[in-house]
Amino acid sequence: MEPFEINILGCGSALPTTRHNPSTQVVRIGNRQFMIDCGEGTQLQLRKSHLHFSFIDHVFISHLHGDHCFGLIGMVSSFGLLGRKTPLHIYAPAPLEEIMQPQLDFFCKELAYKVVFHTIHPDRNCIIYEDKTITVETLPQNHRIPCCGFLFKEKPKLRHLRGDVIEFYKIPHYMRKAIKEGADYITPEGETIPNSRLTSNADPSRSYAYCSDTLPCPHNIPLIEGCDLLYHEATFAEDMKERAAQTHHSTARQAAEFAREAKAKRLIIGHFSSRYTDEAPLLDEAAAIFPDTRLAGEGKCFSIG
Amino acid sequence: MEPFEINILGCGSALPTTRHNPSTQVVRIGNRQFMIDCGEGTQLQLRKSHLHFSFIDHVFISHLHGDHCFGLIGMVSSFGLLGRKTPLHIYAPAPLEEIMQPQLDFFCKELAYKVVFHTIHPDRNCIIYEDKTITVETLPQNHRIPCCGFLFKEKPKLRHLRGDVIEFYKIPHYMRKAIKEGADYITPEGETIPNSRLTSNADPSRSYAYCSDTLPCPHNIPLIEGCDLLYHEATFAEDMKERAAQTHHSTARQAAEFAREAKAKRLIIGHFSSRYTDEAPLLDEAAAIFPDTRLAGEGKCFSIG
Repeated sequence: MEPFEINILGCGSALPTTRHNPSTQVVRIGNRQFMIDCGEGTQLQLRKSHLHFSFIDHVFISHLHGDHCFGLIGMVSSFGLLGRKTPLHIYAPAPLEEIMQPQLDFFCKELAYKVVFHTIHPDRNCIIYEDKTITVETLPQNHRIPCCGFLFKEKPKLRHLRGDVIEFYKIPHYMRKAIKEGADYITPEGETIPNSRLTSNADPSRSYAYCSDTLPCPHNIPLIEGCDLLYHEATFAEDMKERAAQTHHSTARQAAEFAREAKAKRLIIGHFSSRYTDEAPLLDEAAAIFPDTRLAGEGKCFSIG
Repeated sequence: MEPFEINILGCGSALPTTRHNPSTQVVRIGNRQFMIDCGEGTQLQLRKSHLHFSFIDHVFISHLHGDHCFGLIGMVSSFGLLGRKTPLHIYAPAPLEEIMQPQLDFFCKELAYKVVFHTIHPDRNCIIYEDKTITVETLPQNHRIPCCGFLFKEKPKLRHLRGDVIEFYKIPHYMRKAIKEGADYITPEGETIPNSRLTSNADPSRSYAYCSDTLPCPHNIPLIEGCDLLYHEATFAEDMKERAAQTHHSTARQAAEFAREAKAKRLIIGHFSSRYTDEAPLLDEAAAIFPDTRLAGEGKCFSIG
């Protein structure tokens, strides 16, 4: 299976600390790299990682708070200095384009590639990106301003041919795609060979859900049910539940309850408030409800495999 | 003497690397902190330093290339989250205000302090800031876009009273300021006591010159002559002299020659091109001409005193 991994470049909240950068992640699927959010310092974090600048063609911005998008202009500018030619697609709520265009016009006059803005509507669940193998859809969140999460889903995959059986029946090449898609095979003698004899199960279609910044959103549960990996913000511990509600954030306990209800296979928590110099209590709080919880951390890579 | 120190938060050039952040410095004089340039990630670098966010009231931007100002919006925003109330003064070439205002209006709606823009004219040498003890003046540079350096100069200081002599003549308090300023003392008997008997020399007035990004600018020599500390960019080594000329930058050798001609007491070189993974050759090149040269580096602090 091709790699499907989540690289954390930043998992702090609004105020950066010496421990955490603001929110940025890169989802690597095969050799495509999708960025989620782009906090200040993202280009520096990218430099420190094993990720290739030039493979990032799509950036998804969850909402327009500065800690989720102040890194865009520097990254766009540096991509230009590095000789980028291919367009960079930025998916974000309005009015990001309106705010960024004057900066691009002034600071990035000589850009040899296009920055293409795609306006997303955070209040709706819809597919905003699609290619041969994956879709990305919005997950409406409940934050102080319009905000959405993102669900990365592999499309159903082709079944695996059983080499020996294919060989035995001398099945011509042109028929193999149909068989991978589930067709039976009829021999020249008219005998039907059922697909189950010709193929083994396709690899599972993997999925990753990113939910930040938000109060827990039960309406998203049917959308992400059974996802392989869920990143959910846990800005506060449960003793700060009121503050979390006021600021439209979640507690570690709420994140874990959400993961359990959504039957996620694994949970990463992040977007830690700058007040925590040690996130172990957040982890303990979540793991008590959802054992397979991990703390996000700059430089950490979570593989779905 | 009160502290007068230069704190380097970033000394790389346009492309950030794992070794260097883009240009930012904080000049601390007493308990005032003046920022020069504000590259992306400045607020993160501030966090790592011993500097106090709340003591920074004045930011001087040399020119409007992104690596010298992309950190402003994040810093302004975080100052707000940290409860700042006092105005922040930004001195920069036009049209920074025009570019930043839409960002401030959108991202920093709830700012409880004022951001005051002061337009500077990089092509002229003039005083742009003055308080009781120092002046800051522009040093016109030669870069691809309008750009200036900054000269921080202490005003002449008062002479020190010789306690025993003052005591001996029983000089009343109200006369002491004039004596510190150089006046003689005439005793009730009409005898003139020359100032040189009453006082010892004032502390020297210290100065710091920041020159980046620029080709060497001989026209600034009379302005900074004899300065205690000179920061001069040295983006390239001498073997890249042509590239330096094309991009309107300096080589380490040129920086050192400039320091020698300006009779600077000490030299710091910085704004290193991302191509150098080791700046020792730049240091060697400069030190061969101007021995008291040091390499800038994130976290380094250079004291004048």
